[in-house]
Amino acid sequence: MSKQRFHDHAEWLRGDGPGHDVVLSSRVRLARNFAGFNFPGRASQDDQARVMELAKEHITGLGLDPGVVWVDLEALDAEERTVLVERHLISKQHAKGKGARGVAVSNPDERLSIMINEEDHLRIQVIRSGVALAEAFDQIDSVDDRLESRIDYAFSPRFGYLTACPTNVGTGIRVSVMLHLPALKHMGEMDKVRKAAKAMGLAVRGFYGEGSDAVGDFYQLSNQTTLGRSERDLMVGFERDIVPKVVEYERMARKNLLERRRAFLEDRVWRALGILRNARLMKADEAMEHLSQVRLGVVSGVLDGSGLTLPEVQQLLLFVQPAHLQKARHRQMDQAERRLERARLLREAMGPSA
Amino acid sequence: MSKQRFHDHAEWLRGDGPGHDVVLSSRVRLARNFAGFNFPGRASQDDQARVMELAKEHITGLGLDPGVVWVDLEALDAEERTVLVERHLISKQHAKGKGARGVAVSNPDERLSIMINEEDHLRIQVIRSGVALAEAFDQIDSVDDRLESRIDYAFSPRFGYLTACPTNVGTGIRVSVMLHLPALKHMGEMDKVRKAAKAMGLAVRGFYGEGSDAVGDFYQLSNQTTLGRSERDLMVGFERDIVPKVVEYERMARKNLLERRRAFLEDRVWRALGILRNARLMKADEAMEHLSQVRLGVVSGVLDGSGLTLPEVQQLLLFVQPAHLQKARHRQMDQAERRLERARLLREAMGPSA
Repeated sequence: MSKQRFHDHAEWLRGDGPGHDVVLSSRVRLARNFAGFNFPGRASQDDQARVMELAKEHITGLGLDPGVVWVDLEALDAEERTVLVERHLISKQHAKGKGARGVAVSNPDERLSIMINEEDHLRIQVIRSGVALAEAFDQIDSVDDRLESRIDYAFSPRFGYLTACPTNVGTGIRVSVMLHLPALKHMGEMDKVRKAAKAMGLAVRGFYGEGSDAVGDFYQLSNQTTLGRSERDLMVGFERDIVPKVVEYERMARKNLLERRRAFLEDRVWRALGILRNARLMKADEAMEHLSQVRLGVVSGVLDGSGLTLPEVQQLLLFVQPAHLQKARHRQMDQAERRLERARLLREAMGPSA
Repeated sequence: MSKQRFHDHAEWLRGDGPGHDVVLSSRVRLARNFAGFNFPGRASQDDQARVMELAKEHITGLGLDPGVVWVDLEALDAEERTVLVERHLISKQHAKGKGARGVAVSNPDERLSIMINEEDHLRIQVIRSGVALAEAFDQIDSVDDRLESRIDYAFSPRFGYLTACPTNVGTGIRVSVMLHLPALKHMGEMDKVRKAAKAMGLAVRGFYGEGSDAVGDFYQLSNQTTLGRSERDLMVGFERDIVPKVVEYERMARKNLLERRRAFLEDRVWRALGILRNARLMKADEAMEHLSQVRLGVVSGVLDGSGLTLPEVQQLLLFVQPAHLQKARHRQMDQAERRLERARLLREAMGPSA
């Protein structure tokens, strides 16, 4: 079976940018609300619909480049909404929510997305490949400034931006990076990392954010406090002081594995690839675990000559997810059928062996 | 890497004969002792040496065709003796024993082997591929008759042939088959098989006999009692009544897997092959487990098109053993190095993937 190419435009799957060996993507998110309207959780249906209208008017009014696609979540079925969740464009809560709500997404790079009527009226998000919080911040800051020139944001001179959840009050900013820490996991160092993060007031979450497990050694590291410092200070501190430490720690662990336990590392990586290329049934989480090992193999050079590239491997992280798999096969499937098709897709995408 | 061929002459690796889909080999063994000498466990060094001389004189005097190779175990080092254990030509106890002792082996088919000064003065063994106890019995019976015409065996008109261990007194015969029961294992039926065997007075042992675990779903099934029936009766009862039942039971389990759980079966088989073709470190027992799945894949047709044959797979059961591995690489290795070389040998032998 010859290797079949899958391609996806999402920014966070590009596999480039500074520090991309460890950091898949950088994300900045702002929580903003319209003055004079209840937060979505307490808004009347009419107010919720009015916020949607206003948001659409003002966001499209910005004339962003690239342009945004406007998605009305009420018009989508559950599976289409899950596709957006899997793409990290909306949250699970937003997918499950009720009433007028939507998301604006920059097309086709998906760097910028704005959720309307999630927990706050607006959740603005910018994602970049690798370590690129400054660039992400500049873009989001510019969008925020231009929106603020048109919208009367809920703001308190004393507390700052007002948000539905008190943890977001102040700057309303959350900065995060998606880390790939397989070597620290192999060395049994993840507990230390979690403790250190906690001590610095940071949260460690899984691949799909709050409440999700750290499947496949992918971890989201983000700030917890948003009050009392400027957005830029928060972002700069995170990017300059915290992220490089974690990146360095993981790189040292990889160096250690390569120099002192190379056979162990090669064994893990090649077995993972062997399973992905040969399995006939595959769960999503198991696929993520193996893809994590293969990603490590690609960035560490262990898989040089295998013909696999980093973007290919990263895109498979997305294509093995249930809704994307169904989308690729153009049909609904039950769990047993998905396991069969997921294994088939992986064999098609990853090449060699029958 | 192109597939490298390994070849071995051992009869039990041929992968042919009736019922070879389930039965690797049939074995008949006779325990015999010289009259007028203590059993080996109680013999003086001189008597032990004298028995060796007599045995060599009479066995070579038979002028067997094919001829036998005479192996003096005292002249071998521990690794060379282990090679013979791995080939099922001598027992572990015989390898570890003291004083004059040896084994005569028919060359090159290794169908016939005669241990001298193991637990008894003579342990005569004939092995055949597949279900072939009658043929094995005919050969061993003929060798036994010809030896008895030259040697005064220890015999009691009341009890029959006298042996060191009371369980062998009488006919001194043990008949056994080496079974491959992966489907019964997958279906969780092995406990039932063990209980049924026990109820029929049969012993279920592992790949390397007494005290060895049933690694890789290979089981030796043998008679326990040797007293009160003729050798031929025992052998015929075992071959006609017992073996076909187990074979049929395993075949039904395979049919069931193929018809009702085909994806599960294919997944198990292909993953095993994927791991064997890609691992960089491999323990002997783990290799046996995967080779067991691959053997099931080959005989059930799941691996049609993989280019693997049954003899190739069976020979690897032997080549992954520690002493054979060292012999193939022409050097002593510690455990870590063996795991590395075992994985390399499997990749060389099983083909595709880098």
